[in-house]
Amino acid sequence: MKIDSTVGDKIYELCEILFPICRSITGKGTKKTLEIIKTYIPDLNIKNVQSGTKCYDWKIPLEWNINDAYVKDESGKRLIDFNKSNLHVVGYSSPINAVISYSDLINHIYTLPDYPDAIPYVTSYYKEHWGFCMEHRQMLKLKKDIKYEVCIDSSLKKGLMNYGEMLIKGKSSKEILLSSYICHPSMANNELSGPTVLTFIVQWLKSLDLNYSYRVVFLPETIGSIYYISKHLKTLKKNVVGGFVLTCMGDNRTFSYLPSRYGNTLSDRVAKNVLKHLYPNYESYSFLDRGSDERQYCSPGVDLPICSIMRTKYHEYPEYHTSKDDLSLISSKGLFGGYQAIYKAIQIFENNRIYNSRFLCEPQLGKRNLYPNLGTINAFKTIKKRMDLLTYSDGKNDLLEISEILNIPFIEIYEEALILQENGLLEVVG
Amino acid sequence: MKIDSTVGDKIYELCEILFPICRSITGKGTKKTLEIIKTYIPDLNIKNVQSGTKCYDWKIPLEWNINDAYVKDESGKRLIDFNKSNLHVVGYSSPINAVISYSDLINHIYTLPDYPDAIPYVTSYYKEHWGFCMEHRQMLKLKKDIKYEVCIDSSLKKGLMNYGEMLIKGKSSKEILLSSYICHPSMANNELSGPTVLTFIVQWLKSLDLNYSYRVVFLPETIGSIYYISKHLKTLKKNVVGGFVLTCMGDNRTFSYLPSRYGNTLSDRVAKNVLKHLYPNYESYSFLDRGSDERQYCSPGVDLPICSIMRTKYHEYPEYHTSKDDLSLISSKGLFGGYQAIYKAIQIFENNRIYNSRFLCEPQLGKRNLYPNLGTINAFKTIKKRMDLLTYSDGKNDLLEISEILNIPFIEIYEEALILQENGLLEVVG
Amino acid sequence: MKIDSTVGDKIYELCEILFPICRSITGKGTKKTLEIIKTYIPDLNIKNVQSGTKCYDWKIPLEWNINDAYVKDESGKRLIDFNKSNLHVVGYSSPINAVISYSDLINHIYTLPDYPDAIPYVTSYYKEHWGFCMEHRQMLKLKKDIKYEVCIDSSLKKGLMNYGEMLIKGKSSKEILLSSYICHPSMANNELSGPTVLTFIVQWLKSLDLNYSYRVVFLPETIGSIYYISKHLKTLKKNVVGGFVLTCMGDNRTFSYLPSRYGNTLSDRVAKNVLKHLYPNYESYSFLDRGSDERQYCSPGVDLPICSIMRTKYHEYPEYHTSKDDLSLISSKGLFGGYQAIYKAIQIFENNRIYNSRFLCEPQLGKRNLYPNLGTINAFKTIKKRMDLLTYSDGKNDLLEISEILNIPFIEIYEEALILQENGLLEVVG
Repeated sequence: MKIDSTVGDKIYELCEILFPICRSITGKGTKKTLEIIKTYIPDLNIKNVQSGTKCYDWKIPLEWNINDAYVKDESGKRLIDFNKSNLHVVGYSSPINAVISYSDLINHIYTLPDYPDAIPYVTSYYKEHWGFCMEHRQMLKLKKDIKYEVCIDSSLKKGLMNYGEMLIKGKSSKEILLSSYICHPSMANNELSGPTVLTFIVQWLKSLDLNYSYRVVFLPETIGSIYYISKHLKTLKKNVVGGFVLTCMGDNRTFSYLPSRYGNTLSDRVAKNVLKHLYPNYESYSFLDRGSDERQYCSPGVDLPICSIMRTKYHEYPEYHTSKDDLSLISSKGLFGGYQAIYKAIQIFENNRIYNSRFLCEPQLGKRNLYPNLGTINAFKTIKKRMDLLTYSDGKNDLLEISEILNIPFIEIYEEALILQENGLLEVVG
Repeated sequence: MKIDSTVGDKIYELCEILFPICRSITGKGTKKTLEIIKTYIPDLNIKNVQSGTKCYDWKIPLEWNINDAYVKDESGKRLIDFNKSNLHVVGYSSPINAVISYSDLINHIYTLPDYPDAIPYVTSYYKEHWGFCMEHRQMLKLKKDIKYEVCIDSSLKKGLMNYGEMLIKGKSSKEILLSSYICHPSMANNELSGPTVLTFIVQWLKSLDLNYSYRVVFLPETIGSIYYISKHLKTLKKNVVGGFVLTCMGDNRTFSYLPSRYGNTLSDRVAKNVLKHLYPNYESYSFLDRGSDERQYCSPGVDLPICSIMRTKYHEYPEYHTSKDDLSLISSKGLFGGYQAIYKAIQIFENNRIYNSRFLCEPQLGKRNLYPNLGTINAFKTIKKRMDLLTYSDGKNDLLEISEILNIPFIEIYEEALILQENGLLEVVG
Repeated sequence: MKIDSTVGDKIYELCEILFPICRSITGKGTKKTLEIIKTYIPDLNIKNVQSGTKCYDWKIPLEWNINDAYVKDESGKRLIDFNKSNLHVVGYSSPINAVISYSDLINHIYTLPDYPDAIPYVTSYYKEHWGFCMEHRQMLKLKKDIKYEVCIDSSLKKGLMNYGEMLIKGKSSKEILLSSYICHPSMANNELSGPTVLTFIVQWLKSLDLNYSYRVVFLPETIGSIYYISKHLKTLKKNVVGGFVLTCMGDNRTFSYLPSRYGNTLSDRVAKNVLKHLYPNYESYSFLDRGSDERQYCSPGVDLPICSIMRTKYHEYPEYHTSKDDLSLISSKGLFGGYQAIYKAIQIFENNRIYNSRFLCEPQLGKRNLYPNLGTINAFKTIKKRMDLLTYSDGKNDLLEISEILNIPFIEIYEEALILQENGLLEVVG
């Protein structure tokens, strides 16, 4: 169970492949993204659901596709060009083709005055609308006294919403849910890092002899998770014992934790344990800071034990939801960090057992060659860890709790437990 | 349910009317005080109980009345004159009329050496005694070589102890207990601010369609509450779900909270929530700092859920229990603050419900026009509050708990809950 | 129940008597130590168990005795002499008598390079071995080009392991366990202070009319407690409600607390209460810092409510486990402090009751002369303590809990409770 140190590079390469595609909550770009991911993890099922299908308080929206979009000046020069960045068009823009005045145009232009070189990311999923997004600095150059040709060659029609799903079976029918989303156009930390890290986590999971089953989903954010929950609520509530929303996993600035609704699930314990040892100064947020699919997974009555481990969290970095969240913002190293955090979390889920000491009082380690000569600091640490693990293995604490009490990474506790189990000093009781 | 901004002035006026009256735990001054209060709240019942009546470990004392009191020098000049301040006489002084030496006099004089311009407030309810209180600075001027005529024209006789009581009926037989005391002579923060604020709270309560019933009592401190508890214990224990002792509500220096015996009742939660938003730097005391009728209400076996919201607490300001606690120490503004705190606390009692979200997953706010355009900070705050209220309305948290989780004043949470209820997104479950 | 202020001197004298004896986990020195202690507490039973007896994962080792040991140079001069310090020989050294080279000798020499004037304390109980310990500074003077005569006149034979035990009967069959160890050669804080303080605690206990029974044991560390637990597990688990390991009780630098496995037993509450008032800056350790017989008493499945109150803890002072932990490191004053802590802890065990107030509401203290004139600070403190004790005596809090709430030493709370009980205001309910 040794981590692949080159996986960061591989994830980055997948980000490069997926970056140019124009994704949204429906449409060809999203489907193409899923198909590319499926080339990495062939067991992925690409599913769909028809526009208009009801799920709880929502309906699956019309399918949106777009071929081209631009704003031209009177000379026919493209001042805004969808081909240069798919962020230039407001997501779910209805089609338009007209010649309009500056003042009409400006009502449909979105910019960021405080971040004048960035194109903002704007959508209008549930209200018919059209618009363009551009750099504030460029917008200021638009002439007020000319006519503009605006064209959005898009379509909004009854069609399908696509999503990807797979179940990796383990010994137990109890499941870990890993969820990411694939509905954002060309942005890197939020949101290509999530599905790409998840893709390689799945590759790794497929190589293991798993205890838990793993439910993996690639969904359009919000509507996708709402639909998915509505379709699988009973199963999810019965089987899911832990899991994460994978998002913002690719930059290299910090690590972040966003809890479940009450922050008291197994997933929360796992996430905090992993991050404490991986990056002690990680940012710890409140559920009030939520913003992704945990909004649905942790909603009242759904109540799944899901939290988030992230690198720099959405809303918390200047490039968020702009064209500056590009491939230069993420890195192999950053993605490897995100991968590593989920990897370590899964190691805990897989190996978190309850042990009991097989002897009353301390056992005699010396006669089993388990008491190394005390000459070195390492020997001292080994013996201390060994004795402490034995003393807290009282049939009540799981290894995760013991990792907390001893303030030692889970994997070290687990490896020590295996040694003590082999030597007949510990037995599994739960 | 809009607060009357002129109520501070009205309370202050009532303080001015009541200030000159010589109150004690029994006697005409106390009865007159209750009668004046009754002109403001006609439903008040002025009750009485006879001297000698047993209540638990106590007996109602003799009725004390006083007409005049003085100390004269040999020229007949009044050196101490009850007519100038009723604090000059030790409360419950037995009658005396004698000519005595300086050294005999001085044994019956009480002063505050560290506060030489203030007359202390001293009583001797349960031990027969007589005495005068005066400014330390004046005491130093008393001549040692002359005789003094001392006169206290008081009486201690079998009679009555008066108190005021009323029950304002709400939909529920469950009660909020509001208790203040009317046994102190001419002092303002401690203690005219308590019964006067309570008087106007009652006027307001009478204008409302109440959920809870309100039991309002104006009692002599200690003996009054002990008698009242002994007479109504079963009812109080059965019905009272919250309430406050109203005392020290009139100065404008700070706000204070004194908990119930274990600080874990609904009243404690309400008081802390109100004060956190009204005056974040409020003083938080321990029950070990108690000193008023919570000593009885929270005693073992009585165990009522009563705590105190105050302005500057008794014992904690230099003017406490002296002639300097006069009408200049309190103000309309200070009294309005005290009134406001109780008003807000009652708003919480009246409107604290448990809601449940009516949809699984987040509801679609946009289609209900509940998702304002995100252009402004206020719009953002509204949506955030709305979503957070929905997500924590899981049938377990009351609105007060959600106010704590969101760190938003209760009334805002409550008003938002009404909107969401009207729109079919929340339903009351408790 | 007044503490004997000369007891520190008496304990120190006993330390002086026992210091020269060469103790180990078996052998004549340990038996002689127990016999001397028995002259102070005649009810002590000196028990034994045969080598080879199994207890859980362990066997009682062979009996070790030693007459003499030395290293001589070629001139016959003793360079290391067991008669000068019994620490010079590695505990449990097997016999040897040979002439060897410097390089062979040096493999059997133990020193402390960082503490060059101290002889370290080294043992090899469960692995046959011989060796000498010496000052590092002396070791550096050994000539490399001469032969050395080494002699350890010891024996390792089937024999006995001795320990002392007694049960002081109180009214209840519930027991307090007091455990110390008698297996260290000439060292003072760790470890003569433990058994000597315990000896005088027993003398005091014998003079009392006890509520609890007291089980007192003087054991070889680790193997002794493991054997003792294996022989008495059922009784111990049934009867023991509290107790302490007594070790490191004699220096005068600080006080220390080492909790039970989860720090949540009655003994932990008692220890922390005692130390908070005796020495507010006491050191509070984690169970991860354990190192004495609590390792057995608090092991999973044994789970006895045992913690440690110490002066300076083992491992935490430079002289620990060296010849510098001698009689100059401890003092009458230091030992008196250790004695005092255990004495106060036992006062709590013996007198920790649950009381209930006999009146609803506050009782009238004045009519019982329990309300001293308020002129002095002491009078104020007395009344406050009295009222606070009454208000928290609600049939749920034990006096120890009330001591914590009021932040007043237990003994003061207890004495006040007796006064209130005599006056009919409190009654014992648990």
